[in-house]
Amino acid sequence: MKKFIIDPMDLSVEEIDDLIALANDIIKDRTRYQDVCAHKILATLFFEPSTRTRLSFESAMLSLGGKVLGFPTANVSSASKGETVSDTIHVVSGYCDIIAMRHPKEGAPVVASSTCTVPLINAGDGGHNHPTQTLTDLLTIQREKGTLKNLTVGFCGDLKFGRTVHSLLKAMSRYEGTKFVFISPDELKLPEYLKEDILDPMGIEYKEVRSMEEVMPELDILYMTRVQQERFFNEQDYIRLRDTYILDEEKLQAAKKDMIVMHPLPRINEIKTEVDADPRAAYFRQAHNGRFIRMALILSLLGLQNEVERL
Amino acid sequence: MKKFIIDPMDLSVEEIDDLIALANDIIKDRTRYQDVCAHKILATLFFEPSTRTRLSFESAMLSLGGKVLGFPTANVSSASKGETVSDTIHVVSGYCDIIAMRHPKEGAPVVASSTCTVPLINAGDGGHNHPTQTLTDLLTIQREKGTLKNLTVGFCGDLKFGRTVHSLLKAMSRYEGTKFVFISPDELKLPEYLKEDILDPMGIEYKEVRSMEEVMPELDILYMTRVQQERFFNEQDYIRLRDTYILDEEKLQAAKKDMIVMHPLPRINEIKTEVDADPRAAYFRQAHNGRFIRMALILSLLGLQNEVERL
Amino acid sequence: MKKFIIDPMDLSVEEIDDLIALANDIIKDRTRYQDVCAHKILATLFFEPSTRTRLSFESAMLSLGGKVLGFPTANVSSASKGETVSDTIHVVSGYCDIIAMRHPKEGAPVVASSTCTVPLINAGDGGHNHPTQTLTDLLTIQREKGTLKNLTVGFCGDLKFGRTVHSLLKAMSRYEGTKFVFISPDELKLPEYLKEDILDPMGIEYKEVRSMEEVMPELDILYMTRVQQERFFNEQDYIRLRDTYILDEEKLQAAKKDMIVMHPLPRINEIKTEVDADPRAAYFRQAHNGRFIRMALILSLLGLQNEVERL
Repeated sequence: MKKFIIDPMDLSVEEIDDLIALANDIIKDRTRYQDVCAHKILATLFFEPSTRTRLSFESAMLSLGGKVLGFPTANVSSASKGETVSDTIHVVSGYCDIIAMRHPKEGAPVVASSTCTVPLINAGDGGHNHPTQTLTDLLTIQREKGTLKNLTVGFCGDLKFGRTVHSLLKAMSRYEGTKFVFISPDELKLPEYLKEDILDPMGIEYKEVRSMEEVMPELDILYMTRVQQERFFNEQDYIRLRDTYILDEEKLQAAKKDMIVMHPLPRINEIKTEVDADPRAAYFRQAHNGRFIRMALILSLLGLQNEVERL
Repeated sequence: MKKFIIDPMDLSVEEIDDLIALANDIIKDRTRYQDVCAHKILATLFFEPSTRTRLSFESAMLSLGGKVLGFPTANVSSASKGETVSDTIHVVSGYCDIIAMRHPKEGAPVVASSTCTVPLINAGDGGHNHPTQTLTDLLTIQREKGTLKNLTVGFCGDLKFGRTVHSLLKAMSRYEGTKFVFISPDELKLPEYLKEDILDPMGIEYKEVRSMEEVMPELDILYMTRVQQERFFNEQDYIRLRDTYILDEEKLQAAKKDMIVMHPLPRINEIKTEVDADPRAAYFRQAHNGRFIRMALILSLLGLQNEVERL
Repeated sequence: MKKFIIDPMDLSVEEIDDLIALANDIIKDRTRYQDVCAHKILATLFFEPSTRTRLSFESAMLSLGGKVLGFPTANVSSASKGETVSDTIHVVSGYCDIIAMRHPKEGAPVVASSTCTVPLINAGDGGHNHPTQTLTDLLTIQREKGTLKNLTVGFCGDLKFGRTVHSLLKAMSRYEGTKFVFISPDELKLPEYLKEDILDPMGIEYKEVRSMEEVMPELDILYMTRVQQERFFNEQDYIRLRDTYILDEEKLQAAKKDMIVMHPLPRINEIKTEVDADPRAAYFRQAHNGRFIRMALILSLLGLQNEVERL
């Protein structure tokens, strides 16, 4: 495995399979893993806040018996004194055994890795990459559907700017029999380059539609994302379109009984709370899976995955 | 014991007695308890900052051998992205074993408990409840006076808005022989509903006065609170009244030798620092008790109070 | 050893030698020390942010098996409610076993120590003292040069306001054979009082120059500091002088092969990144030493330095 996990594609399909297997084993018997990272320190360096992601990383490390230090936002860091990211990382890598960093600028983790002397995980860099979100999504799909193959995945909402959508699309493209359905307003369609660089060369079947209703019965997975008002040219368009991309129990009636609804969270109003009680609503289970796949990733990057047997 | 401790009255007198006994045992021999929460995680979710309370909770969990994660203020949390409290709690309850939350809005912890899958402690919701402050106060009274019965408790300052006053009043009302003396300006008198709903039906003896001097010799406990300038209609009233509600060594001369002075802290100027050296000044001991009653509460909510014997 | 380490001069030369020896032993075999502070809690109270220093303290305590709580900046602390520093410290000393505090006001740690019931380390008070920076510098010099005696130390940049410069000057003045070279613009020369109070009475050899080039071949240590634009009366002066105080590979060619370059970090542009690869660039090693000298100091203040043998 690479030492720096910056892009989800830094991991091979085989490595991802191993991580998923390890996460599943952790879920099965957490007590076996509860001391395996004793005396190891994770630094969570969040140059922009992201509570959910940060707490998930910290929970992962603490659940392995490790320790955590860091900062939750840049205004309490030396970045505000004009220090470069690579200097900050250079110094902090002397204080810890592994780093998870989040940064508002795309490419910051690549710059950081140039001076980093310990393993580093990108916890999100701007609109770019967020590999542990993708790993969380893959673990969730595997657990909920029993497989990562032959699935029809619907992405709904903002497909133009949605980082999680682009990453999961790339990751799922590597599995046999994947089909995609892209559900979005014209303003927020999937960028052409993803079709040209990924979908078309790999011969992956996909279609683009404007409403969930048209395709609901076909989907194995409905991956919801937020439609932000700022993305629209004018308010009328936003108001006209908004409801089309809100999932409720009525729309869900047309779905397969074993379809799952995913969402990277936080949600605002794009999934009505009435859906939460539906067994197909997998988004909170998805969030909780984030802790376990991060445990698997930290263990693997520290080379401690085999320590468990010896404890 | 209930799983969610939101209002001090969620605990029966018997449960409170057990918590006080447990806290006293912890104080007597802390080393017996220092590993009992190993592998457990407390999340401190502070949607508004409160350093003292947060550090007290964290110290409690760490002193039990547990671990801590969380956020100290809402501007580093997902709340700023528009997520509801119940969604945040739903997600975070997958990352930890117990939650302490503070929120500026009254009722937020009740909303939170609807999706919370682990025990939850309200660490203050607006002007409403703050059960661990009340438990801290009760532990302090028990330790300082040797009993919770037959005590005359004077509350001084802002009795209209003071959350700690209202909660301690309710809690002390349940003990035999409690008498209250309310010392405040007219503008900041105890709300009528507390007299009508609690004091009168329970037949509790009380009186209302405007100055400490009138009642000092009668008191077993003098509970001081801050008088904030914003509460007054005009500055003259504030300046005229302010000094009446400042405790100094001179006023304290009329008090019983074994009276105790309590204060929830932080204090601004309502207790002169000259009082700190007086053995009756119990407010710093009170603050330190907060750690131990929180240890007792965390232990009990996690169902680990009997683990101690086995370690 | 004193209980409160506020000024680097609170430590005798002998105590410093012991701390350096302990830090070197920790570096040699960290695993021997990894549990020695189990069940101890460090509070990091940062009334102004300083990520590097805070994370170094936290890493130190975690690496000793201890636990950490605290706040990274005053706006999440009770200070914003108007509480005095001595009240905050009084309360928090009941929640922990040792405190590291940073405060923007000179003298705040002295005030704090009046109510502090546990050992306290000043982690920087305004432009005043920062003893663990000085200890870090001394450990670095000892490790890099093999001795603290008979060294020619060049200080370059802002010698007027530079806290680290003044403290290291005082500390190094106590070692035999130390010579100083002060390299600065006229506007930022070393204050006269340091010459009159320290250098002249102790008969220490020094000279003052305006450029590095004049003295580079003589130096055993070149200690760089930032030259902040705000320190100058007008922009022209700043622009004219700035480059004189920027270290690059060209200027470094005239230096001894075993000279070392130090810097308290963060750097902005006063050392070009091309210098980082030069083996004489000791500033990142210096930053990493900060963790180990802080481990030694925490151990000694807790009286646990001899526990290691018994574990």
